[in-house]
Amino acid sequence: MAASKCARLGEALTRQLLESVDFVLFDCDGVIWRGDQVIPGAPEVINTLKKNGKRVFFVTNNSTKTRKMYADKLGKLGFNATEEEVFGTAYCSAIYLKNVCKVEGKVYLIGSNAMRQELEKMGIQPLGVGPDPVSGVQIDWANVPLDQEVQAVLVGFDEHFSYMKLNRALQYLCNPDCQFVGTNADSRLPLEGGKSVPGTGCLLRAVECAAQRQAQVVGKPSKFMFDCVASQFGLNPDRCLMIGDRLDTDVMLGSNCGLKTLLTLTGVSTVADAEANQKSDCPHQQRMVPDYYIDSIADILPALEA
Amino acid sequence: MAASKCARLGEALTRQLLESVDFVLFDCDGVIWRGDQVIPGAPEVINTLKKNGKRVFFVTNNSTKTRKMYADKLGKLGFNATEEEVFGTAYCSAIYLKNVCKVEGKVYLIGSNAMRQELEKMGIQPLGVGPDPVSGVQIDWANVPLDQEVQAVLVGFDEHFSYMKLNRALQYLCNPDCQFVGTNADSRLPLEGGKSVPGTGCLLRAVECAAQRQAQVVGKPSKFMFDCVASQFGLNPDRCLMIGDRLDTDVMLGSNCGLKTLLTLTGVSTVADAEANQKSDCPHQQRMVPDYYIDSIADILPALEA
Repeated sequence: MAASKCARLGEALTRQLLESVDFVLFDCDGVIWRGDQVIPGAPEVINTLKKNGKRVFFVTNNSTKTRKMYADKLGKLGFNATEEEVFGTAYCSAIYLKNVCKVEGKVYLIGSNAMRQELEKMGIQPLGVGPDPVSGVQIDWANVPLDQEVQAVLVGFDEHFSYMKLNRALQYLCNPDCQFVGTNADSRLPLEGGKSVPGTGCLLRAVECAAQRQAQVVGKPSKFMFDCVASQFGLNPDRCLMIGDRLDTDVMLGSNCGLKTLLTLTGVSTVADAEANQKSDCPHQQRMVPDYYIDSIADILPALEA
Repeated sequence: MAASKCARLGEALTRQLLESVDFVLFDCDGVIWRGDQVIPGAPEVINTLKKNGKRVFFVTNNSTKTRKMYADKLGKLGFNATEEEVFGTAYCSAIYLKNVCKVEGKVYLIGSNAMRQELEKMGIQPLGVGPDPVSGVQIDWANVPLDQEVQAVLVGFDEHFSYMKLNRALQYLCNPDCQFVGTNADSRLPLEGGKSVPGTGCLLRAVECAAQRQAQVVGKPSKFMFDCVASQFGLNPDRCLMIGDRLDTDVMLGSNCGLKTLLTLTGVSTVADAEANQKSDCPHQQRMVPDYYIDSIADILPALEA
């Protein structure tokens, strides 16, 4: 539809774009909220889209919440949303381990209680949640007891990440049959006020360095995230719009899956980043150019209400 | 001297090699010991080299000990060695921060008590040693109090590494004037019995990912480690032999500094690794081909005693 990419989305173009899609996939952090602060106007946009008959989904790399926890947060912040519309990496990683990795038994989990809950729902038993401080000396660490039923190591966001957890992951991953999965590779988690804290990507890099293996990454830009939504709701990629604040995850996912893409400037990436990618002759960078960009998701409201 | 590289060192060649050098630099982990177990014959080799008039140095990327602690360990395991002959990255990083980074004030340290001691000896005040478990919520982490006198973040081996330490490092490194130094980038620390535990490289990768900056690395293969020894003892690179078990650190350091290089097979790298580098036409890999290799450091003893 777009003659040239990376176009600023005005009111007429917004109307035209929305007519061309039935499904709208929203990233969350940096798009509809920052930390616990809602982006002003975002609930109105989403609620109006739904009222106008669009199907809306929340597709987030953040692994700290279950679908239920996201639905609760969305509700509290004024969004009309259900659990079934939420696709976070805690949930999608559990599907991935079950359906792609064929894990039936246990998983060594660097991650949160929310991840534990989603795994347990899928019949997988996670070990390792909670604090794991170091004790003993080096040779003790190398000989930590391992559970023989562990079939995979899963790395997600874990505020209790520690040297001992890194070490346990390494000892499991020395077995080449042990599968290695990461929820996502985001280096930072953006918060309100322009601040950020280290993201899951940092923990994943540490474990990859120790294991000398690369993890299979479930989150955006992996097509798996889109496939989760598409297989449950019969999405047609041609009729989908992906809205996100990151070129390397959200826009890349859209490009990988043939979706229309819209960059919002309330999060990580800038127009300058997008234009630099557009000028590059590297095909990888070209996939990180959005079809459209917009200052804030709120800016599409006039076209919706007109 | 070597017509072809990567030659197995027999007795005659050993005698010829030793005649051509006055200074012998030994890596420690995987060369003269593994964890707390001495490589059999290593003390005799080093003590005989010294008796024969060679100057011997211990050049290790391991940051967990002060020079004094290394001298004590060496003594206990039967090596004739003094503190002044030891160049570990705890000591060398303190020199680097003082002389290269011109740090006068404080440093945020992900590292050990040994590193703290070496920094304090150099008049630098390290903050952060010891456990640092997480508390509060994300926005609290982003707003941790920062000491305005901190001029650099130094990452070394730290068994108390935690999400909170990673976060503090990120918050300091958001200031572009804050310097960023790593002791070394080794991904694993090899121990007795073929086991290993995660090395400093894993912690450094995590902090680099969060900070979206690359650290200046002090340890091998950085020339700085050799310069530390050379400037204090007036070494002539032509008359130096570097003995190590790693191609990417020890042999690379030797190549970077114009030293003769000998790979021992009691540690990380294999002859197959060396030969693969030799076959490559990549200049970077070519620098990871040793002049000689030997099964164990003990194998040079006959040539020494003859």
